[in-house]
Amino acid sequence: MTENCSPDTDLKCALHLMGEHALEASRKLSLSSTDERNTWLNLMADALERDTALILEANEKDLADAKVKGLDKARVERLILTPDRIKGIADALRHVATLPDPVGRILSSITRPNGLRIDKVSVPLGVIGIIYESRPNVTVDAAGLCIKSGNAVILRGGGEAYYSNQALANCIRTAGEAGGMPENSVQLVPFKGHEAVSLLLKMDDCINVMIPRGGERLIRAVVEQATMPVIKHYKGVCHIFVDRDCRDWKQALNIIGNAKCQRPGVCNALETILVDEAAAPEFAPALAEYLNSKGVEIRGDETFRRFADSAAVIPAVPEDWSKEYLDLIVSVKVVSGVDEAIRHINRYGSGHSDCILTQNVSTAETFLNGVDSAAVYWNASTRFTDGGEFGMGAEMGISTDKLHVRGPMGLEELNSYKYKIYGEGQIRS
Amino acid sequence: MTENCSPDTDLKCALHLMGEHALEASRKLSLSSTDERNTWLNLMADALERDTALILEANEKDLADAKVKGLDKARVERLILTPDRIKGIADALRHVATLPDPVGRILSSITRPNGLRIDKVSVPLGVIGIIYESRPNVTVDAAGLCIKSGNAVILRGGGEAYYSNQALANCIRTAGEAGGMPENSVQLVPFKGHEAVSLLLKMDDCINVMIPRGGERLIRAVVEQATMPVIKHYKGVCHIFVDRDCRDWKQALNIIGNAKCQRPGVCNALETILVDEAAAPEFAPALAEYLNSKGVEIRGDETFRRFADSAAVIPAVPEDWSKEYLDLIVSVKVVSGVDEAIRHINRYGSGHSDCILTQNVSTAETFLNGVDSAAVYWNASTRFTDGGEFGMGAEMGISTDKLHVRGPMGLEELNSYKYKIYGEGQIRS
Repeated sequence: MTENCSPDTDLKCALHLMGEHALEASRKLSLSSTDERNTWLNLMADALERDTALILEANEKDLADAKVKGLDKARVERLILTPDRIKGIADALRHVATLPDPVGRILSSITRPNGLRIDKVSVPLGVIGIIYESRPNVTVDAAGLCIKSGNAVILRGGGEAYYSNQALANCIRTAGEAGGMPENSVQLVPFKGHEAVSLLLKMDDCINVMIPRGGERLIRAVVEQATMPVIKHYKGVCHIFVDRDCRDWKQALNIIGNAKCQRPGVCNALETILVDEAAAPEFAPALAEYLNSKGVEIRGDETFRRFADSAAVIPAVPEDWSKEYLDLIVSVKVVSGVDEAIRHINRYGSGHSDCILTQNVSTAETFLNGVDSAAVYWNASTRFTDGGEFGMGAEMGISTDKLHVRGPMGLEELNSYKYKIYGEGQIRS
Repeated sequence: MTENCSPDTDLKCALHLMGEHALEASRKLSLSSTDERNTWLNLMADALERDTALILEANEKDLADAKVKGLDKARVERLILTPDRIKGIADALRHVATLPDPVGRILSSITRPNGLRIDKVSVPLGVIGIIYESRPNVTVDAAGLCIKSGNAVILRGGGEAYYSNQALANCIRTAGEAGGMPENSVQLVPFKGHEAVSLLLKMDDCINVMIPRGGERLIRAVVEQATMPVIKHYKGVCHIFVDRDCRDWKQALNIIGNAKCQRPGVCNALETILVDEAAAPEFAPALAEYLNSKGVEIRGDETFRRFADSAAVIPAVPEDWSKEYLDLIVSVKVVSGVDEAIRHINRYGSGHSDCILTQNVSTAETFLNGVDSAAVYWNASTRFTDGGEFGMGAEMGISTDKLHVRGPMGLEELNSYKYKIYGEGQIRS
């Protein structure tokens, strides 16, 4: 497809060439051994530490640009690399190297009545596209997971981290290729601007899946345009429902505090508390007091405000029920019981992580079955929705879709499968 | 989202209302029991037989329209319903009722060091959209598989089968609902025209996956527009590679004949034969003679024509290598060995089903690992790529994508999963 085009003057041509190169690399990667891939990851980690000065130099350029552009503090903070952070990125690669190889698992093996043996075997997805925003560590983290799982990767980082991403990608790519990693296994799109992204999103002939990581706007734009499958979550509007049979209030408040306050800026943090009307008269004041003591702003519905100290509770507006605050703010609503809680969550939630606090086994099962979310908890913090906490060793992100992967996406989810079929001359009649 | 719109005058509103109804039905379906769903399928089957006259009447209308429009013979043939065909459709539903329930399987269960128990449990996908062309039986087959697997379905059939599809959908819907099936579990889009399809394809807030079934043009249009995940295959350009160590020629020709001739119009039929140059001098003439005797038109490359009786072989043009003939035509190319065979298949194939004929174990493994297709065969016909033949009991279609499902899509692949997490007050530190 790129046979008669000029990559130097034609952006589409240049991107398709990257795609073809990635596809070629992915064929070779799919045949590489576990040891080879782990060696490459360790070589990359060593190179990152060795090239720290070079990487920091590139990072300085981005930071200087950020100052000129007047980037806000939070974004600058995400952009900063330090020797410690680079060491952390390198160690994460070394950790990924120690994880089990997802490739080549025999998922099932059956022998049919006609003697045909059908093995279902895990294989890499092929070429993975990653479109991400400011954090430059994603360049290495994502590439490491792709290589570990036998995939080639095309990275498209944010403009703010342009030089940092280039330095990091060059470093790991060179180190890997010096150790025998197929050429172009890791490629970073060097073109700035939206056009490159729009073109990438139509390259379904050479990119098997696109994983956008960043804010909701970025992800919606990717879904809107992509012709290949996309793995994503828009946001995390996570709920905790305090049931009428929640009898351990200390535990309940402890879980609520952890889910809301331990790291409010992440997608598995709590955003809405639902309180059973049977528990509300007594629990509401206790909850309001507890949240106040933690410095959490409360936006409550009328009933909650009636039971709690209404001076401490801001009236909630309809938009609050689907809001991802990512901050020390929580909305609270009184519901008639578990059924209304389930309906509310299925309507306003994001299908991410939701929890019931109760000592009633049957109500808990009703909630676990009825809430249509990736992770549904009984008496535990929603903050556990994470590849590491789920025992996957590492994660590429979280999916709130239901196809292919739901919840944390680990190494196994970066694989597909194929059927290898062993015959002795069988024909179909 | 449909709160202030008028379904009677606004197509978008009417479709969104269908989507919301389907979503509501899917919540109820996901909580239904195995017995309930099987009962509904059997009720539907009985109703189809009971309402045969009504259905045939509707089918007559479509056939009359087809005559007016001058539909070609093959399409008219696909459209025709008879009492026997209706009985067949009903029996297929009854068969699906006997299959294992894919919902509620515990896919894994781990207890983390902190005591958190994490169960990964299969759940329905939710709402499945099916866009299909002329065959009216798809209306019932697809709906049956969706209901069995706990999903609500929105069906959008081809205009040629408009009345037949309505009669079939009404029949099964009414029968199911009379037996307690949630209202709107099965809905057929009553609107003709492309606009309805385009609108449906943007309804990712209430349709979890879109499954297009039909020609390549239809499927490309769906992929181009859809914002929800799509499960599909464009076409099946299936290969058989005759290796230098293929010593059982009788078996080889038998497999080739079966793959090409047993049912040439389907996606797992053979389209291209690759012959190892070391085998070509002797095998090429035998192959040409065999294919001739079967009435198969041969389009060969220059080398093949040199070895075979060139009068019996039409010169192949470059387009032949990626052509899905769906007819008694085959392209043949001589390659330098297994590596070129793999490269050719990965370049020109469709990732569907490909086969090596050899007695060499090591070459076979090279082929099985190197060919990047859903099903890769050693010494067996490509025609086996089928949910039934793979032991799935039934199939919704074939996927050549690598996400979620690759190869035949059975009942298990019409499920997603969720994590049910059992805690005792755990919080994240």
